[in-house]
Amino acid sequence: MIRVGIVGATGYGGREIIRVLLGHAGSKLTMLASTSRVGQHADEVLPAFRGATDLTFEAYDAKKLASECDVVFIAVPSKESMEPAAELVAEGARVIDIGPDFRLKDPHAWELYYGTPHRVRDLLPDAVYGLVPWYREAIKNASLVAVPGCYPISIILALRPILDAGLSDVPIVIDAISGASGAGRGLAEGLHFAELNENVRAYKLGVHQHVPEIEQELQYKTVVQFTPHVGPYTRGILSTITVRPKHLFDPAPYFEVYKNEPFVRVLGEGTLPELNHVRGSNYTDVGWKRDERTGNLLLVSAVDNLMGGTAGMAVQCMNLMFGLDEAEGLRIGALSP
Amino acid sequence: MIRVGIVGATGYGGREIIRVLLGHAGSKLTMLASTSRVGQHADEVLPAFRGATDLTFEAYDAKKLASECDVVFIAVPSKESMEPAAELVAEGARVIDIGPDFRLKDPHAWELYYGTPHRVRDLLPDAVYGLVPWYREAIKNASLVAVPGCYPISIILALRPILDAGLSDVPIVIDAISGASGAGRGLAEGLHFAELNENVRAYKLGVHQHVPEIEQELQYKTVVQFTPHVGPYTRGILSTITVRPKHLFDPAPYFEVYKNEPFVRVLGEGTLPELNHVRGSNYTDVGWKRDERTGNLLLVSAVDNLMGGTAGMAVQCMNLMFGLDEAEGLRIGALSP
Amino acid sequence: MIRVGIVGATGYGGREIIRVLLGHAGSKLTMLASTSRVGQHADEVLPAFRGATDLTFEAYDAKKLASECDVVFIAVPSKESMEPAAELVAEGARVIDIGPDFRLKDPHAWELYYGTPHRVRDLLPDAVYGLVPWYREAIKNASLVAVPGCYPISIILALRPILDAGLSDVPIVIDAISGASGAGRGLAEGLHFAELNENVRAYKLGVHQHVPEIEQELQYKTVVQFTPHVGPYTRGILSTITVRPKHLFDPAPYFEVYKNEPFVRVLGEGTLPELNHVRGSNYTDVGWKRDERTGNLLLVSAVDNLMGGTAGMAVQCMNLMFGLDEAEGLRIGALSP
Amino acid sequence: MIRVGIVGATGYGGREIIRVLLGHAGSKLTMLASTSRVGQHADEVLPAFRGATDLTFEAYDAKKLASECDVVFIAVPSKESMEPAAELVAEGARVIDIGPDFRLKDPHAWELYYGTPHRVRDLLPDAVYGLVPWYREAIKNASLVAVPGCYPISIILALRPILDAGLSDVPIVIDAISGASGAGRGLAEGLHFAELNENVRAYKLGVHQHVPEIEQELQYKTVVQFTPHVGPYTRGILSTITVRPKHLFDPAPYFEVYKNEPFVRVLGEGTLPELNHVRGSNYTDVGWKRDERTGNLLLVSAVDNLMGGTAGMAVQCMNLMFGLDEAEGLRIGALSP
Repeated sequence: MIRVGIVGATGYGGREIIRVLLGHAGSKLTMLASTSRVGQHADEVLPAFRGATDLTFEAYDAKKLASECDVVFIAVPSKESMEPAAELVAEGARVIDIGPDFRLKDPHAWELYYGTPHRVRDLLPDAVYGLVPWYREAIKNASLVAVPGCYPISIILALRPILDAGLSDVPIVIDAISGASGAGRGLAEGLHFAELNENVRAYKLGVHQHVPEIEQELQYKTVVQFTPHVGPYTRGILSTITVRPKHLFDPAPYFEVYKNEPFVRVLGEGTLPELNHVRGSNYTDVGWKRDERTGNLLLVSAVDNLMGGTAGMAVQCMNLMFGLDEAEGLRIGALSP
Repeated sequence: MIRVGIVGATGYGGREIIRVLLGHAGSKLTMLASTSRVGQHADEVLPAFRGATDLTFEAYDAKKLASECDVVFIAVPSKESMEPAAELVAEGARVIDIGPDFRLKDPHAWELYYGTPHRVRDLLPDAVYGLVPWYREAIKNASLVAVPGCYPISIILALRPILDAGLSDVPIVIDAISGASGAGRGLAEGLHFAELNENVRAYKLGVHQHVPEIEQELQYKTVVQFTPHVGPYTRGILSTITVRPKHLFDPAPYFEVYKNEPFVRVLGEGTLPELNHVRGSNYTDVGWKRDERTGNLLLVSAVDNLMGGTAGMAVQCMNLMFGLDEAEGLRIGALSP
Repeated sequence: MIRVGIVGATGYGGREIIRVLLGHAGSKLTMLASTSRVGQHADEVLPAFRGATDLTFEAYDAKKLASECDVVFIAVPSKESMEPAAELVAEGARVIDIGPDFRLKDPHAWELYYGTPHRVRDLLPDAVYGLVPWYREAIKNASLVAVPGCYPISIILALRPILDAGLSDVPIVIDAISGASGAGRGLAEGLHFAELNENVRAYKLGVHQHVPEIEQELQYKTVVQFTPHVGPYTRGILSTITVRPKHLFDPAPYFEVYKNEPFVRVLGEGTLPELNHVRGSNYTDVGWKRDERTGNLLLVSAVDNLMGGTAGMAVQCMNLMFGLDEAEGLRIGALSP
Repeated sequence: MIRVGIVGATGYGGREIIRVLLGHAGSKLTMLASTSRVGQHADEVLPAFRGATDLTFEAYDAKKLASECDVVFIAVPSKESMEPAAELVAEGARVIDIGPDFRLKDPHAWELYYGTPHRVRDLLPDAVYGLVPWYREAIKNASLVAVPGCYPISIILALRPILDAGLSDVPIVIDAISGASGAGRGLAEGLHFAELNENVRAYKLGVHQHVPEIEQELQYKTVVQFTPHVGPYTRGILSTITVRPKHLFDPAPYFEVYKNEPFVRVLGEGTLPELNHVRGSNYTDVGWKRDERTGNLLLVSAVDNLMGGTAGMAVQCMNLMFGLDEAEGLRIGALSP
């Protein structure tokens, strides 16, 4: 039985990890660390999980976490997992960070997009990018896994198979829309119900911090024009990707690469994903359409940002790291409706 | 491994049973019967479950279902499960009906509220009302279980413990609100997105078909004024129940009856449930508030109409009927958010 | 041309007054006062009204407001309009307060429900309760109008006609649901999109501050059990009211009282209002159903909390106070959808 | 007083025209024609407008409409306004068609995208494209105005000013999202509340019938890759437009063309529109961002598909056609929230 700790379990990503682990047969949730909730019972802080765990929030203590847990998920705000990850690894725990701090290999890219120098650059080479279909073997032996961002998961899974299919040098246009949970539980006017309901807006045009992550994992073979949006719903990212190839090609053979993937569903030409089919599940769905008139290839992908886009991918990494059935705890069907 | 069949698997209740069974360790989905989808692959009809099952929809065939399945869930529209249930029971299958046809013991009540005579009255005495906390032992040996309605689950679980606590003869006022999924997948103007979004309405005042079911299970000790509403969201019922007792009493001791229930969470005085804490899970949450000024006791309960209010309760019944761990497949945490 | 000032124009109530006045022929918006936005242009603070006004937010200055405006709307948080109202009246302005500070005639009721002593008790007798259908004549000459609360408008308009129709002494049960805008623009976890979306909850059971306002305007002839809820939508209150009369009577003749009201629509027996029919408009719709089985009368009313429930009623008061066509600026059809 | 008739007043576009006209000072709604509701009172069919009109639906009768109305709005499904428009024009009425039948000048484009030959091709040259900022003078004298589609309004207003600013030959990528009302009131599974709520999907990739309309009004100077989406809300279109210019230029001077437009708001560089700021109003908002890294220009525009995107534009055309103040009836502030 793998003993699991979570640092930052009150945020939406951390809560979703708990949700998954409640039905996970090979692990046991052992410690919940928090800065703001120390001493409070999980029932009180996380009423959705009332009765499902007896844990009480504890102060973060790397030594204790490492000794009482085999693996520690870090689910703290961006820029705050560097030191905990370093400490936990040093104490011998295996660490799965769902934040961005260890996703970028290039510390200059980090500084450019996150606005602050990276403080534990020496750990960057060791961190494994936790995108299971592309880094499965490396994840198995990783001491530190950086779970990809939710937008990048939806985008990279759609684009990486076709990188060598003859793209032109026109930047790939990615318009993606996320539900409100992607922005986390921090209060903000733009996330106030009456301000987001019935509303859609684009944000961070050209400067979103997922740009360097996407381009890194597309191996710098292309430039992306990434425009994120937020819409009036809770979960899910739909990414609409317009690719201008040199010659319009059939993507189907390239997507054979996923044929054994348990959680990537390739829908093929003309069948498009929608959030309804992935909500609450670990799946990423990808479909496409070739537009002969314009010469463009359009790809659409869908993922639940909290599940397949965060916690599900993180637990899939854990399963690999500990030799469990890769799909353990993740055979959760999508809510429909 | 229990072999499971579902009759009517394309509706919302049937789909939710599939969702639960995907993560259920002791059973195997063996047959899907449908009238409209015969010959179609489940992947095509139920895109949320793509890749999770290899089944193809078959025509309803009682004999075949009974021979290839140990248990058959019936998830067809109201008034249409009478004959299939009778046939399947006759063929030796154990049957769990999520529709209303076998919930009322009194065929006259059926005719009055459903507008049509009951066609298999002789089966009514054998049908067990599948409200687990109150009929656990009877369910274990039942050949035919009638899963309660979603509104009744939320209401009876809140009221049945206090029936003998000194209620007055003033009707209990129940205002409940359901999400759109409660009305099923049949198209209707009132369920058209642009008509229900941003809208709330009350309906079937005084004549809703769940009235006799609720009063039957409250043992005719009280009259209920039940006013259902529908609101702009997908899942969940919140029932607000105003009780006028002879003397205001503390309900806490009465709710001790649920202390070992795995899926009823008693929140106590002043802590009120909300849909956010039960969505996607099998829990029914109940809290209350005594109003000294008016002399009334207010109870509030919450349940996911498709899960705790239908499919979860149905699978809990199945677990009991086949001697499995009662919570198998049902330790699915609530989506939060 | 009536010159209009607004104190607190950045809140949802204040914004809605601006929205109405943009199409109001007999008035001119002259001053916008704010504490937090002094010096900022309205275009910047209120992007929905870009280009529609040239005003810049000014600091609150009673003397200036009174000299440059004929009427001042106060739209500040509860408990904060007492002094401004007193000052503005003293300076000779006519004042329409959309907050609660002058609604209760009994300062003890105020203190009990609002938790603080009333600081300008001597003004209470002069304040006119701005419920147009019941106080039309008094409003015409008022120097200070207290616009009713949104819940009270929906409830009092439904109940006041039948106060003398033979109610029993059983408290009237009112379960009402409001959209998120009713809670204003202040950030709160319960109003965070991901926490309120797909959610419904009851709150302030038995202690909501609108209880004394409702009972005052029902002339203390009845006790109300008022349970407010909040649901996942922006605008509108639906109130479901269960009345236990001594003998079930036909309410239709009592509702003749509204036959000339421009903004109360009496739908009659069996036709029930819904939010879709009032959204964005100044109407309050009321319908009912007699339940012969229980002996109860059920009334349902609907109002847009920001319009008919606040700003529309406030502008209707203004029209009366200045001898304008009572419906000027208010013939705004409901958004449908 | 202009006498107004509406053919097809029960659809969402027709209803919105009624909503606007209720507050329009220079016109009077005289006739409502319908195929399905003949003889029914408007109160019954359109409960949102109860009490606001005394009209009863009549059968369509071109002669009667033309004799009793100065202008007739046609608001019927696509492909069904050809004959009525021709008949009404022949009878001497001035006609404003909110459907697509007279938008395309090229009947082959019509046939290609609408799948049926155009049946009144001889009227096409006379029809004026009712995009006020670009066809104001022609609209004044038109006998037949074809109001643009909602997507095209949001897109053409953003792109037409910069057509000559040096675009490359890379197709312009337009990802737009519409609320559910854009699909009308016809029932469909994809518009069933439980299927669209919490969902986003792309549709009609590369083949949407607004493509030829957009390209026509961009004077065939560019090819567009138009990908429409539908999201879980009622009103509003947000269009995100990625332009690849030969050299990145400052769009601001080009947008001076709108400086006197009453209902186009140019927000400039870095200020982006959102649906919240246009909902219920006649405004189209446009903002942009230059991305130096990719060399692309990103434009974002927002419009309420039923108002600025349909009924508001239509009434603005009517005002021009009859010499009224162009903004009469349209100074309706955006709902905020």
